[in-house]
Amino acid sequence: MDILDIQTFSIIVSVVALLFAAYMFHWVKKQPSKNETIKKLSKIIRQGARTFLRREYMVLSCFAGFCAVLILFFLPKPIWQDGAIRNMVMASSYLAGTIISAIAGKIGIEVATIANAKSAEAAKKGIKPAFLTGFRGGSVMGMAVVGASLLGVSILCLLTKDSSAILGFSFGASSLALFAKAGGGIFTKTADISADLTGKVELGIPEDDPRNPAVIADNVGDNVGDVAGMGADLFDSNVASMAAALVIATTLDNSMNTSLHTVMVFCFASLGLLASIIGVLFARIGKKGNPTHALNNSTYITTFLYIVFTAIATKLYNLDWRIWGACIVGLIVGVVVGITTDYFTNDEKKPVKEVAKASNSGPAFTILSGISYGFLSVLPAMIGIGVAALIAYNLCAPIDATYSLEYSLFGISMSAVGMLSIVGMIVSNDAYGPIVDNSRGLAEMGNLGDDVLKITDELDSAGNTVKAITKGFSIAAAGLTVIALLGAFMNEVNAVAVQNGLEKITGFDVMNPLVFFGMLIGAAIPAVFSAILILGVNKNAQRMVKEIHRQFNEIPGIKEGTVQPEYDKCIDIATKGSIKELIPAGLTSIIATVIVGFVGGVHAIGGFLTGNIVSGLLLALFMSNSGGLWDNSKKYIEAGNEGGKGSQAHKAGVIGDTVGDPFKDTAGPSINTQITVISLISSLCASLFFTYALFK
Amino acid sequence: MDILDIQTFSIIVSVVALLFAAYMFHWVKKQPSKNETIKKLSKIIRQGARTFLRREYMVLSCFAGFCAVLILFFLPKPIWQDGAIRNMVMASSYLAGTIISAIAGKIGIEVATIANAKSAEAAKKGIKPAFLTGFRGGSVMGMAVVGASLLGVSILCLLTKDSSAILGFSFGASSLALFAKAGGGIFTKTADISADLTGKVELGIPEDDPRNPAVIADNVGDNVGDVAGMGADLFDSNVASMAAALVIATTLDNSMNTSLHTVMVFCFASLGLLASIIGVLFARIGKKGNPTHALNNSTYITTFLYIVFTAIATKLYNLDWRIWGACIVGLIVGVVVGITTDYFTNDEKKPVKEVAKASNSGPAFTILSGISYGFLSVLPAMIGIGVAALIAYNLCAPIDATYSLEYSLFGISMSAVGMLSIVGMIVSNDAYGPIVDNSRGLAEMGNLGDDVLKITDELDSAGNTVKAITKGFSIAAAGLTVIALLGAFMNEVNAVAVQNGLEKITGFDVMNPLVFFGMLIGAAIPAVFSAILILGVNKNAQRMVKEIHRQFNEIPGIKEGTVQPEYDKCIDIATKGSIKELIPAGLTSIIATVIVGFVGGVHAIGGFLTGNIVSGLLLALFMSNSGGLWDNSKKYIEAGNEGGKGSQAHKAGVIGDTVGDPFKDTAGPSINTQITVISLISSLCASLFFTYALFK
Repeated sequence: MDILDIQTFSIIVSVVALLFAAYMFHWVKKQPSKNETIKKLSKIIRQGARTFLRREYMVLSCFAGFCAVLILFFLPKPIWQDGAIRNMVMASSYLAGTIISAIAGKIGIEVATIANAKSAEAAKKGIKPAFLTGFRGGSVMGMAVVGASLLGVSILCLLTKDSSAILGFSFGASSLALFAKAGGGIFTKTADISADLTGKVELGIPEDDPRNPAVIADNVGDNVGDVAGMGADLFDSNVASMAAALVIATTLDNSMNTSLHTVMVFCFASLGLLASIIGVLFARIGKKGNPTHALNNSTYITTFLYIVFTAIATKLYNLDWRIWGACIVGLIVGVVVGITTDYFTNDEKKPVKEVAKASNSGPAFTILSGISYGFLSVLPAMIGIGVAALIAYNLCAPIDATYSLEYSLFGISMSAVGMLSIVGMIVSNDAYGPIVDNSRGLAEMGNLGDDVLKITDELDSAGNTVKAITKGFSIAAAGLTVIALLGAFMNEVNAVAVQNGLEKITGFDVMNPLVFFGMLIGAAIPAVFSAILILGVNKNAQRMVKEIHRQFNEIPGIKEGTVQPEYDKCIDIATKGSIKELIPAGLTSIIATVIVGFVGGVHAIGGFLTGNIVSGLLLALFMSNSGGLWDNSKKYIEAGNEGGKGSQAHKAGVIGDTVGDPFKDTAGPSINTQITVISLISSLCASLFFTYALFK
Repeated sequence: MDILDIQTFSIIVSVVALLFAAYMFHWVKKQPSKNETIKKLSKIIRQGARTFLRREYMVLSCFAGFCAVLILFFLPKPIWQDGAIRNMVMASSYLAGTIISAIAGKIGIEVATIANAKSAEAAKKGIKPAFLTGFRGGSVMGMAVVGASLLGVSILCLLTKDSSAILGFSFGASSLALFAKAGGGIFTKTADISADLTGKVELGIPEDDPRNPAVIADNVGDNVGDVAGMGADLFDSNVASMAAALVIATTLDNSMNTSLHTVMVFCFASLGLLASIIGVLFARIGKKGNPTHALNNSTYITTFLYIVFTAIATKLYNLDWRIWGACIVGLIVGVVVGITTDYFTNDEKKPVKEVAKASNSGPAFTILSGISYGFLSVLPAMIGIGVAALIAYNLCAPIDATYSLEYSLFGISMSAVGMLSIVGMIVSNDAYGPIVDNSRGLAEMGNLGDDVLKITDELDSAGNTVKAITKGFSIAAAGLTVIALLGAFMNEVNAVAVQNGLEKITGFDVMNPLVFFGMLIGAAIPAVFSAILILGVNKNAQRMVKEIHRQFNEIPGIKEGTVQPEYDKCIDIATKGSIKELIPAGLTSIIATVIVGFVGGVHAIGGFLTGNIVSGLLLALFMSNSGGLWDNSKKYIEAGNEGGKGSQAHKAGVIGDTVGDPFKDTAGPSINTQITVISLISSLCASLFFTYALFK
């Protein structure tokens, strides 16, 4: 297979995915919506989300512009050394990465804030059309994200033929993801916590009551955090996994004077998108069907199709079966990690029940037992990622004895590509969640009646279950990707070494104190990053609670429901605060990387990345899982267990849930992005660190 | 200086320390005690502690016997390969390590449970004699621990001339520390939490009220957790740091046909003990003096003396100044880490105040802000340990170009020896804490009046402040020690490699997937270990609460104070439960090590240890510091801030404190021991893993 052929094929598949997204968008928009209240509220949510995105993108464009200028002057090498052309390519690729990811996020938000109202309306006719509307809305995001990322990488590769440019593109996507995921995470939890504290706790009104000034901000938050944030996160992971694989493939291709390895990356990635498109088409539900099964079935179908497609391609084009094996191992481990994660957050399993039981003794025990199960939950995923890397290595190292290190790294990176192959399906499932969550809220606010509420509740609950699984999946995928990025970093370092006539490095030895020094600091960064984000949510929530109290005191009629609260003020506070609180967290990680790099050079950075990956995975899994566990254990109590609503256990469960909120929706999932960002910065600055470090 | 001379000198210093401990013991015992209630209660506490120790040592002796048999058959090599003699030496050294540490713990408990009553009685005469009694009681433990460890290592070295035997001795000390620290930690928190829940919360009676059946168990817990546990922990760290240094020194000595490096280890370690003896003698307080200053001053005096002594020795005997430098860097970093730890737990600094302020919004915010500051607190210590290792490396690597790796490792290990040099002083300060904590309780139960209570309160508060600092210190010391142990492990592996005519390994490369695989699993272990311990405390506390409720219901007159509760039943539950809950935690870590070793060989173990150290330090610092932070922020509120006792903030603060209890007194400080145990197992099993691993 020729490299041009496969890149053309990738571009075609991407365009098909984007057209498919456009069709689905059109289809969702065409669905009827009659209820005036819902229409009005949905419009407010849409406008709130747009306001957030506009402001976020404005700050981001300053940030991205600043970064682009830095890149132009310094990366991959200072402009006075190698001339401007490569630097200009790099800076443009970086900007392209941010812009394309931003557009995908914008599309996702637009469709999600339309689909929520349509799905609520459709629920009047039964679960089948309501599910379809929600899911097709989600699939627009899924197809847009994966189509756009594959299209971007393919075109960039075609134009520049430079895998470092892909690293720049990937760094652009990561910058955006950092804003979208961490900023969106702060936004959504600020609104959620403030709405709960003032509404449920102080006034005793229900969750989605329109009298609460923060209620719309809360709904906006679901969209900006879960739709735009999660989309940007997986866009980022997907691009990063391809970038890492392409950097390593280029080394192999150059050494062997072939294009085979680059071909494999594009081939396996585009077949994944193809499988996802078909999987999405298959997502159907019967009249009384179970939405969880429908979502899971289409994931299994996609997985199955992917295995078959890639096997056929491997056979037809005589690709290496060992690399196919590495790819499939990644995919299977991803699914297994998803399932074990489910054990720790599923309300039919022991952990959720035990935490609910412990809540009887008071909130301290809710917290202690939740933290303990959260700690336990990291083990299977860590083992899974380690085993995947080990198998991929052992499969691929024997391919060529001369290049066994390169092949083994390529195997690991292809394992990450394999795990992320079905990401189109995963994003579709994941974006479905906030859409139906929103429609549940809208159905309540629009008084659509108990039957409709029952349907939207069922759809919402399926969304939560699937969300837990996809979260485990995306953390595992990020884990493998960053191991591959570590390999990419070493390749970049060696490229510089060869240019300078120096010896190549073969790895990062933990017995080298520079490596160990970097590792200790790198390990501390995810903890510091999480701390800053959580404290940010705290501070921002306090600001919003103050505003809500002001509205309650100064505007008569709000509490009685005769006057509409000033929803936009709350949205404004959440927006401004989230961006303000996010910046120190992002800067700390970036500055730490640069300091460690200039102090300890590439060895310290190797250790820094390793420590960061290891502790980042640990904390991300811990926080995401314990957060999900507390959420579901509160719901389990609310379903009538351990005394049900209003009991001592319920009060403790609510406290656990509040602690878990920023764990699972702000800090936990943002750590992925933090790891990717600093991995990419390290690769991009490899030459600088190599040349200008204090110790070497 | 001859090796025999220095070993003789070490033995003399150790004996002086032990005699000094005996004199102090005698002095404390001679102090008057008249109050009958106090005498009776003190006796009950002493008997409770004895019961716990007896039962713990019984289980431990089964465990140790089993381990000794395993060692006899398999370590350092299977008995059928090299004959029985080295294995017998190893097994005996192991048993000696457990027994000597056990005896030191027993002495500490005996004196602590006498000194508590004497100090309470002395408080009637003023702060000066009360402080002196408490501190001298603590110093018995300090001198016994350090004297016994140095004596044991010196004699063993003299007899066996085999540094591997010291590893066996160290493993014995670690086994005991695991039981003492983790078991004691479960005991003390079981009692503390149950006493609080039933006494303070349900009945609304004060903390040390004798009507509470768990109150004596709580006092016993202070002794078994903080005195025996902490003593065994630092005995363990001290021996491990010497063992690591001696293993590396032997390699250097053998290569250069000298005994200089071994001499340095003994010289620097025994001068530390000498400095501590003098420092303890200097701990004085004026009639209206400040006990915190007195404790800190004697630490500074010890540090100063140590620097002077070692400088003189280096000059006199022409030792290497670079190694002296590494040693002093370790000591200084230890003190700096202690001071930064203080920032996060001191009630005059921002974190404690902020957490107290956040408590106004409810317990969820107490928890979230405490976790955040706990996360932030890891950064300075991680940087400190990394910088110490880096400086030690860079100082010592240039000593000899041929042996630069060995010298750099020796530098790091001497840096750990330096940090632990003043451990005699540290243990004395640390054991002072629970003694005066107990005397405060006894003074209240014995109705000694408000003046006495004021004095004991002041002594107690000084104990808490000093405890926070020494905890940071001991985690940092363990961190450096285990880095040195990693070096010792590599030396053991290379000794095997040389014997088998194979190539030496030069390190553990993170780009080797075996290393990475080990690292991911190793990083998960401290989380799993902590989870099992915390869940153990939960379970055990539930059992004890049940028992207390039974006593309240079945024995009339308890609540009124006319009938004495059955204290021993509660002590019994805490004892049995703590041992039962500890075993799975210990076994999980040990079995994981053995599995990883037999699957991935020495490279996977190298990664496993690295991951374990990095995530272990992170979690240990996080849990110890956030626990201390919550404790002090509750006390800060109780002192009248943020609404004072009974306010909303206070309730939230109490919940934070309960969450923090097993963090800071069970899981956090036990992680040290867990890391040391698996590091030593790895070194001991190096030959087995090298020969029989599945992958290599």
